Amino acid sequence: MTEPEEAQTGRSLAILCGGGAFPLEVAAEARRSGRAPFLIGVVGASEPGIEAYPHVWVRIGEVGKLFGALKQRSVAELAMIGSFGRPDFSDLRLDWGAVRRAAELSDLFRKGDNGLLTGLARIFEREGVRVVGAHEIAPGLLAPAGPLGARAPSADDEADIALGARLIEAMSRFDVGQAVVAAAGRVVAVEAAEGTDAMLARVAELRQSGRLRRRGLAGILVKGPKRGQDLRLDMPAVGPDTIRNAIAAELRGVAIAAGRVLVIERDRCAREADAAGLFACGFRP
Amino acid sequence: MTEPEEAQTGRSLAILCGGGAFPLEVAAEARRSGRAPFLIGVVGASEPGIEAYPHVWVRIGEVGKLFGALKQRSVAELAMIGSFGRPDFSDLRLDWGAVRRAAELSDLFRKGDNGLLTGLARIFEREGVRVVGAHEIAPGLLAPAGPLGARAPSADDEADIALGARLIEAMSRFDVGQAVVAAAGRVVAVEAAEGTDAMLARVAELRQSGRLRRRGLAGILVKGPKRGQDLRLDMPAVGPDTIRNAIAAELRGVAIAAGRVLVIERDRCAREADAAGLFACGFRP
Repeated sequence: MTEPEEAQTGRSLAILCGGGAFPLEVAAEARRSGRAPFLIGVVGASEPGIEAYPHVWVRIGEVGKLFGALKQRSVAELAMIGSFGRPDFSDLRLDWGAVRRAAELSDLFRKGDNGLLTGLARIFEREGVRVVGAHEIAPGLLAPAGPLGARAPSADDEADIALGARLIEAMSRFDVGQAVVAAAGRVVAVEAAEGTDAMLARVAELRQSGRLRRRGLAGILVKGPKRGQDLRLDMPAVGPDTIRNAIAAELRGVAIAAGRVLVIERDRCAREADAAGLFACGFRP
Repeated sequence: MTEPEEAQTGRSLAILCGGGAFPLEVAAEARRSGRAPFLIGVVGASEPGIEAYPHVWVRIGEVGKLFGALKQRSVAELAMIGSFGRPDFSDLRLDWGAVRRAAELSDLFRKGDNGLLTGLARIFEREGVRVVGAHEIAPGLLAPAGPLGARAPSADDEADIALGARLIEAMSRFDVGQAVVAAAGRVVAVEAAEGTDAMLARVAELRQSGRLRRRGLAGILVKGPKRGQDLRLDMPAVGPDTIRNAIAAELRGVAIAAGRVLVIERDRCAREADAAGLFACGFRP
């Protein structure tokens, strides 16, 4: 445990853990690089696995408890990792720390994801905690440029990737989604509140129902951050689930913005894509 | 029957009927305004109700038969109404008229909806048939500006309508969809290949699963043509099904671009929206 030393140097790192295995992967990567992360579990969101690290559990709304824990551990850097959903503000049990910031917090919940997270980061930073991104504490998880596995995109695929990337760019200022599916010059799905997995399930359904018929594999999932997206707060991610959903949608491949998307379990992603005949690659944004 | 006279004047009108009741509504409206439409049914797509009019049935791929019928009836104007799906080109049984145009037709099927329909129109026009839109032969079906029923949008609703309209505009050059759902400043769904009804079903699901929680009615369906969309070929439409799906998604209202969206069964739309406490209105694009 190098954790007490780290607290003394004032670089103590906390990870606010949203749902899924991703926070644990970032924590493991941070630990490999010599950090000693303190994990903050959110009741109803985080995995029990966070208890393998020094941790505290908070409920949404226990803002005072959260800041108390950060102060007690002299946390200087905080990463918010994983998905937090979008709680209904009127459902929350608020502690005093939340009530003190209530107007500000309730404002945040009316905004798009960008507005919400930017506002949260501002509140943390005002308390003296620097918000960092997964890419800063676990850069080994970033998508490389080029194929992850054996297959690479064809020239036609590259055209679809470019189309998808341009659409994500054009939608940037609307704070919509981070992913689209493009097939042979046509955009067939755009992600918004449903998320990437639900979008891929929709494409699978459209193909099974014959409303989006094509022989064999067709379509590419293109995923990357919006222009101006603060990667410290909202870093797109893909993992084996993404690959599996792309396989179920009979896509030709998955293309992610190199250096700007995190890849969870990269080897497994590559293996599963290879086995199904898909490509998975990082494209230069 | 004024139809033989009309054929003599060279203004004979044909309607290529896609799926749903919409072609029949356009035919009835055209008849009310003194035209005598000749209906072309597409096997597997058109309703049997087209047989109440002078008609012919063709299969997709029977391009020669289609052009033969147009010539025989001296058709001068043709409207393509309703949804035609997107047939897999390799499935088609092609007649000689199709084979003669095969390269051109197969090119079309690789493009987005705009490209496909524009190309089809070009082929018709080259054969001397002017392609007209539902708005030209049935202008009584166009959305008015302002409320269809008793309720009108609030100032906040107007802001969401403007947001949705701006996003549709920004996506125009990508030939994606014609509808989005905006809720309290946030875009929660974007339509692509799945169509408006499936998008609304998704929003209903997101709300039921709690992934898009809000108390009471929330969100507005905003629908209108893309910038530069040829309304002769692809006119957005709403009808009682749209209203019913918006009710199921617990939306606050439905907003359509005035003069640029067709409303099927307007009275019924207004009545059903009123009964459920939704607004339905035309907005000035």
